[in-house]
Amino acid sequence: MMKGHFFVVFVSFFSILLRISPIFGQNDHAFFIKDIYDYSLTKAKCYERLHYLSEEIGGRMTGTENAANAVSYTAKELEFKGTKVWKQSCMVPSWVRKEEAKVQVKLNDGSIRDLHATALGNSIGTGGKQISGEIIEVFSLDTLGILGEKSLKDKIVFFNRPMDPTQVHTGWAYGGAVDQRVNGAARSSLYGAKAALIRSMTTLIDSIPHTGVSSYGDVEVKIPAIAISTMDAEWLSAQLSTQKVIKASLSADCYMEDDKESHNVIAEIKGSEFPNEIILVGGHLDSWDLGGGAHDDGAGCVHSIQVFETLLALNYKPKRTLRCVMFMNEENGLAGGKRYAEVSDSLGEFHLAAIESDMGGFTPRGFGCSANDEVFKTYLRNFQTFSTYLEPYDLYLKSGGGGADINPLKPQGGLLIGFKPDSQRYFDLHHTKLDRIDKVNKRELELGAAAITSLVYLLDQFGLKGVPSEE
Amino acid sequence: MMKGHFFVVFVSFFSILLRISPIFGQNDHAFFIKDIYDYSLTKAKCYERLHYLSEEIGGRMTGTENAANAVSYTAKELEFKGTKVWKQSCMVPSWVRKEEAKVQVKLNDGSIRDLHATALGNSIGTGGKQISGEIIEVFSLDTLGILGEKSLKDKIVFFNRPMDPTQVHTGWAYGGAVDQRVNGAARSSLYGAKAALIRSMTTLIDSIPHTGVSSYGDVEVKIPAIAISTMDAEWLSAQLSTQKVIKASLSADCYMEDDKESHNVIAEIKGSEFPNEIILVGGHLDSWDLGGGAHDDGAGCVHSIQVFETLLALNYKPKRTLRCVMFMNEENGLAGGKRYAEVSDSLGEFHLAAIESDMGGFTPRGFGCSANDEVFKTYLRNFQTFSTYLEPYDLYLKSGGGGADINPLKPQGGLLIGFKPDSQRYFDLHHTKLDRIDKVNKRELELGAAAITSLVYLLDQFGLKGVPSEE
Repeated sequence: MMKGHFFVVFVSFFSILLRISPIFGQNDHAFFIKDIYDYSLTKAKCYERLHYLSEEIGGRMTGTENAANAVSYTAKELEFKGTKVWKQSCMVPSWVRKEEAKVQVKLNDGSIRDLHATALGNSIGTGGKQISGEIIEVFSLDTLGILGEKSLKDKIVFFNRPMDPTQVHTGWAYGGAVDQRVNGAARSSLYGAKAALIRSMTTLIDSIPHTGVSSYGDVEVKIPAIAISTMDAEWLSAQLSTQKVIKASLSADCYMEDDKESHNVIAEIKGSEFPNEIILVGGHLDSWDLGGGAHDDGAGCVHSIQVFETLLALNYKPKRTLRCVMFMNEENGLAGGKRYAEVSDSLGEFHLAAIESDMGGFTPRGFGCSANDEVFKTYLRNFQTFSTYLEPYDLYLKSGGGGADINPLKPQGGLLIGFKPDSQRYFDLHHTKLDRIDKVNKRELELGAAAITSLVYLLDQFGLKGVPSEE
Repeated sequence: MMKGHFFVVFVSFFSILLRISPIFGQNDHAFFIKDIYDYSLTKAKCYERLHYLSEEIGGRMTGTENAANAVSYTAKELEFKGTKVWKQSCMVPSWVRKEEAKVQVKLNDGSIRDLHATALGNSIGTGGKQISGEIIEVFSLDTLGILGEKSLKDKIVFFNRPMDPTQVHTGWAYGGAVDQRVNGAARSSLYGAKAALIRSMTTLIDSIPHTGVSSYGDVEVKIPAIAISTMDAEWLSAQLSTQKVIKASLSADCYMEDDKESHNVIAEIKGSEFPNEIILVGGHLDSWDLGGGAHDDGAGCVHSIQVFETLLALNYKPKRTLRCVMFMNEENGLAGGKRYAEVSDSLGEFHLAAIESDMGGFTPRGFGCSANDEVFKTYLRNFQTFSTYLEPYDLYLKSGGGGADINPLKPQGGLLIGFKPDSQRYFDLHHTKLDRIDKVNKRELELGAAAITSLVYLLDQFGLKGVPSEE
């Protein structure tokens, strides 16, 4: 009885009236962006796709069958009418976590405690043996040099500098602590240490260990790199403040296999006016194995696919060439990002702008932009003219930003743009078993897709000149 | 071994250097705001207080023992050195949900389905009986007049207009649908309907019913007002599209008792230079009974208490008089807010600014401001000069905003300011059993407190004139 959404009907009618009114002729861009938001919040498939990536395929370590499945799945999802899709071959590292790391601490009273631990990516294993040694707690890489081989030889180095909780953007706090995770083991090995334990990268104090990449660089002796939970790190630190010597015993079964072939997935819509000016939007397909890679970076992938779906559903014909790229191997090698730029450079392509979404599927806050020095100031100023259209959606445009996969495109001289969602909850789950679909809010994810689609639209309409001042 | 947070020590030292350097003399305000953020993100007690309010005390319906416990608890928490605390008596309504509402739908094939239902606040019960009748679905209050008594007499009216998912701010979507909940039963009773069923106020499709206030205004015949979950609303609507007549049977045991005495809780720090200019910060103590009132509005209470704790911990001596007010009865009567303004007006007080936090404990996005027409434009312009100091924390200052409890202060001619956190998840849990501490992120809550404290500081320093342009 009396069924009919009067309100919605009224709004649509009003919207059509506004469109045909000459007074509002200048507002076509604003209307199109409203259409993008309406579509994204009512018809977008990004959440369903993310569910599939995170829960049906699951964790997608580079080189695994899951990663290959993600390549096939997203290539298929990108087969929209009017798009060309291809896979770009690249050789990738293949690191295997066969059995999870175990870390036991033995106190002076003989009691033993198991820590919540996980091997860091690219770490060597312990070759089926236990490694035991005295724990030395440090708070920075530089401390290693001060302590020297005399203090570190045959020890297990425990890196325990927390992420700074006073940073409003958690990414900055991560940036201020992650050197321990990436380089802790390699640097410790220079002084004869046997292994490195690293406090997990999160501002929470809990029992969840966070994995993430570690790198040996060109050190001669590789030693295992293992993360422990922040709660265990706090506990261990407290123990060390009352007991001079505490020993740990650890094992891990993980190893690097030979490189394998894998792929970036690329979809393209050719531009009608400026086909040689490419606007790229992308995320990375691979994820850590512990969770489902929902926020990192399934969200970035489904955001990017959604840009194509939405624009095509709205019958948009781009002036410039749009590319959607699912990069492979961001987490532990960047093989995909490097390969993409290498091929692009060899073809003499120009990426006018590249946008990466790799900070999760949370409510969008805005975009950060960077570029080569010589053109930076003009580009950035022009970029910020898009604010006229994005501010009503509470999106800021700031300087500074990019993305690991798109940074190799910097020499081409275009804009590198990082999508910036709310950062508060990201490191509660980043690189852990918790990074699954239940941590993603559907509306927040859709708003991210809408924000990125709107920016792609504006870049396509106005290019590097930005919105003309009379508009 | 080698324990010491070098990084933190370095930053503190650098910060002191900057402070004593004459070059940075202009930046005292920026430094103080950084101090506010640092304190809020490392030492604030707001999360612990919210845990107590939500989980130890629990849901705090106006007039209940829990509400009285919340009065005592927050009055005690506000006993900081240098503050005067008092309770302000007010008479409040006392609505009792004795037994939850039951709604059954009987289809033409004889099958029966129980809906997920909850009585709306202030609703009458069914007097120990079942009320049965044919369901008539409508999508707006105005439809009732079109249908008339002929179609509605003895029927159960089912209001099913969804919150508009295309609104980027969920509060706007709520505003566009909540008239059905507030006035649906009263308006239906004018046409002889027996009861009203109202689709829950959320953009999610799930099985959780949302309560909230309903009002009979001055109608002669009151009929029960019951919310059903959105999933049930969708199902019922689908059934109604294929079956002409569907009957519902419902019962509810809830009633209004005589008014009781309750209290607002007020804390004050007297201003040293302009004691007659009051800056108020507040939230409401009462909550619905179904959950713990964590986001609505325990968060606003602990935000407000935190403003006092932080400023006092930083040895701040306000120029103007600061008031922290825990209002009673926002949810189903506004008795506390009205009483506070009445007493304030009778004393000839002037609230230069009143800030209310009543939109949850999510990541802050900014503040919305409104004021009387004649002064509005100047005040708003001055208010926006605070952006200089708040933009680095990604906080916007916009026009439009206030709060239910502070709106009665509007005739005093000062600024009414609403704190605006991210709105995406609020209506996933608003007025439901889900509104508990586990839905609150500690950092997000702390950032809200820091944002509000910073604004109180700027208002205290610069008053209604805003930041002078030379700063």
